[in-house]
Amino acid sequence: MTFELTRKFLEEIKELVAANDEAGIFNKLEDIHPADIAAIFREVSKDESLYIYSLLDEEKSADVLTEMDEDERKSLLEGLPGHVIASKIIDNMESDDAADLLGELSEEKQAEILQSLDDVEQAGDIVDLLTYDEDTAGGLMAKELIAVNEEWDIEHCVREIRKQAEEVDEFYYVWVVDNDEIFKGTVSLKKLLISRSNTKIKNILDTEIPAVRTDTSSEEVANIMKKYDLVSLPVVDTIGRLLGRITIDDVVDVIREEAEKDYQLISGITEDVEPTDSVFLLTRARLPWLIIGLVGGILGSRVIGIYEGELKIYPEMAFFLPLIGAMGGNVGVQSSSIVVQGIAAGIIDLQSMMKKLFKDFKVAFLNGLFLSALIFIYNMLISDSFALTLTVSTALFSVILFASVFGSFVPMALHRFKIDPALATGPFITTINDIIGLTIYLGIGRLMYGVFI
Amino acid sequence: MTFELTRKFLEEIKELVAANDEAGIFNKLEDIHPADIAAIFREVSKDESLYIYSLLDEEKSADVLTEMDEDERKSLLEGLPGHVIASKIIDNMESDDAADLLGELSEEKQAEILQSLDDVEQAGDIVDLLTYDEDTAGGLMAKELIAVNEEWDIEHCVREIRKQAEEVDEFYYVWVVDNDEIFKGTVSLKKLLISRSNTKIKNILDTEIPAVRTDTSSEEVANIMKKYDLVSLPVVDTIGRLLGRITIDDVVDVIREEAEKDYQLISGITEDVEPTDSVFLLTRARLPWLIIGLVGGILGSRVIGIYEGELKIYPEMAFFLPLIGAMGGNVGVQSSSIVVQGIAAGIIDLQSMMKKLFKDFKVAFLNGLFLSALIFIYNMLISDSFALTLTVSTALFSVILFASVFGSFVPMALHRFKIDPALATGPFITTINDIIGLTIYLGIGRLMYGVFI
Repeated sequence: MTFELTRKFLEEIKELVAANDEAGIFNKLEDIHPADIAAIFREVSKDESLYIYSLLDEEKSADVLTEMDEDERKSLLEGLPGHVIASKIIDNMESDDAADLLGELSEEKQAEILQSLDDVEQAGDIVDLLTYDEDTAGGLMAKELIAVNEEWDIEHCVREIRKQAEEVDEFYYVWVVDNDEIFKGTVSLKKLLISRSNTKIKNILDTEIPAVRTDTSSEEVANIMKKYDLVSLPVVDTIGRLLGRITIDDVVDVIREEAEKDYQLISGITEDVEPTDSVFLLTRARLPWLIIGLVGGILGSRVIGIYEGELKIYPEMAFFLPLIGAMGGNVGVQSSSIVVQGIAAGIIDLQSMMKKLFKDFKVAFLNGLFLSALIFIYNMLISDSFALTLTVSTALFSVILFASVFGSFVPMALHRFKIDPALATGPFITTINDIIGLTIYLGIGRLMYGVFI
Repeated sequence: MTFELTRKFLEEIKELVAANDEAGIFNKLEDIHPADIAAIFREVSKDESLYIYSLLDEEKSADVLTEMDEDERKSLLEGLPGHVIASKIIDNMESDDAADLLGELSEEKQAEILQSLDDVEQAGDIVDLLTYDEDTAGGLMAKELIAVNEEWDIEHCVREIRKQAEEVDEFYYVWVVDNDEIFKGTVSLKKLLISRSNTKIKNILDTEIPAVRTDTSSEEVANIMKKYDLVSLPVVDTIGRLLGRITIDDVVDVIREEAEKDYQLISGITEDVEPTDSVFLLTRARLPWLIIGLVGGILGSRVIGIYEGELKIYPEMAFFLPLIGAMGGNVGVQSSSIVVQGIAAGIIDLQSMMKKLFKDFKVAFLNGLFLSALIFIYNMLISDSFALTLTVSTALFSVILFASVFGSFVPMALHRFKIDPALATGPFITTINDIIGLTIYLGIGRLMYGVFI
């Protein structure tokens, strides 16, 4: 029932473009959703996109642009003069999308487009929005909203909505303000439809929906909208005047992006990349963490180098070097990821940090005990060297304890210093745990071999 | 502006409970959102929760339960008889929440509650919903919706909405059907408010919103709602009759859960755990992957054991064992995570698998070349052994190539066989890459030392 982009459809479009069949292309795309047209652009050449794009009607060309990825949008906009962008695109966009789009362009191009806009009020809204940080409620909000006065009755309100509705694409609540523009609450469209027409707005006002300030972080906005199941959230200034609203579709994007960012950090990728990106971009996104891993490996080789003498006599000590490193890494990533997810979900209270670390210690103790016992039994059956058997089990136990507590501690500490805790996950924790694991293992080994042989 | 749960507030609640001050508790919680009350329950004892819960009014007690985590909800419901759950809770819930709640209970308790429901139509709706898999559109949808006939005019439509609206909590669209109940499209509340009252519904009908079938996966539902920026999505049966609707707040939960699941898999955690879970649960969630890591480490020790003779003569070969293992692991996780994210975003087309693998090969080639060159320079400066220098660089290059292609291949192969590709990430890929890395490194080492010494 939803549109699916097939090879056949793409072929047909390409043929129509090659034949310069403008009417054919227009007809073919008429009933296709802007999101799907954006997907088509991803599959055709830049010239083909520009040609097809020029045939879309104004409303659609604005919507298609909103649906495109930043890079693709930028490259398409480069081919268009400022006054065309202003009249054909920006004029048909909601203020938040327009501000996002302008924010991606050079300051010169921004000025050119803003000056070409006929609607000065719209230009003013966009300039206002451009001042907010994109990771805050101000950066997410749109200025278009339906606001009514709490003193009005429903009839007055519906008249006003008819007047204001032209400006606003879609809305689910009517926002209520007092005479000073201070936000008082909401009225759902359902209530407007089912209440008597002489009812005063203040009597059917719903005060349950919270408002956020422009400087609220987008992560907190997402958490609030999710917690209270909101489709739209009002944004106010310091004294509570209504400035704009944030809709759930923008927040769904925030949630996905946050999750993707954390995922890429834990997998050691430093930039937002997709399989479709260029080889160069993909390489660059992966190299930084790999260099950290390499440096860690070199440091590890220096640690092992200290024990060259022992290794010459007891080469079996080398057998378990990778095991100790890998286990330290795995345990560390497990611990840090649980903390990172807990912080993201707002569960981890900073005051309970010591308690959390103690709990992690207990978990690690149980895991360590079990795994050391397993490897102890294995080595008792297989190895001739009791010194090695004792070394591996003691070291594994210590490494699991250390890696676990360290893996929990680092993201909590980062969070306390207002640094993204997810930075702690991935190759960083793994690499440090590797080196410390080697040090513990070889240190214990020297001790054990000293005692038992 | 939003409620924040403070220690002071908790103390006060606990004091009121200790003093049996029912009116005091009721007043204190009256203006607090159900989601925040659910958060309070997380902080007090089970007896305290049950006591507070018994004081909430019916509407609120249903909403609070919807906001709670599954475990907490279960434990609270255990303390309540079936007829109380039916009349006080289920009766005030939307059908999707009611079905979710019943789905968590034993079949006996389900039957007891369903038989106690006064509203047979509601009981029927719930029974219908219970038949759907919870990971499908059927499992996500609610039966409550406002449906109107395409032949009606707006006046008729508003009358009908007033009648139906009692049943439905909140709604943003009116769904339009024909005489056979076949879904035809939507009318937004905005259009209803601003159009003339004698306009026929079929003339203001919006056909852009797609419908999904009950067996559409919840992941696809999330992708469709995100792509088309929908707040509500209609669900139809095989012949297109309207059965229910899915709202965005349920889908936000799906998106979060999907992301969390992938994140836990890549960090080697096998169950959905939170920092607040018990030590036992946290230990159990972490142990399975650690055991795989341990078995991998033991296999690695067997591989190294084969080269015991060489290690006795050239102990410096052991220096770089952890480096090779770690780099193979890092590269493998990077590759697999890019593929997993690409599949989740719907970017990776299965037919282009070979192309993708070839691209990954090129990325790995560049990364490998750069990193091997780095370690080559390092070893030329530091190490006395040219055989070792050559071994480390050649092995690192080969391991990066292998780990990268292998890391891309496994999730793509799993996806092709309809297995969750995210299963490939985390300790699984890392462990296999570790072992294969060791084999490559030591094999090349034997060769090099054979040639150069």
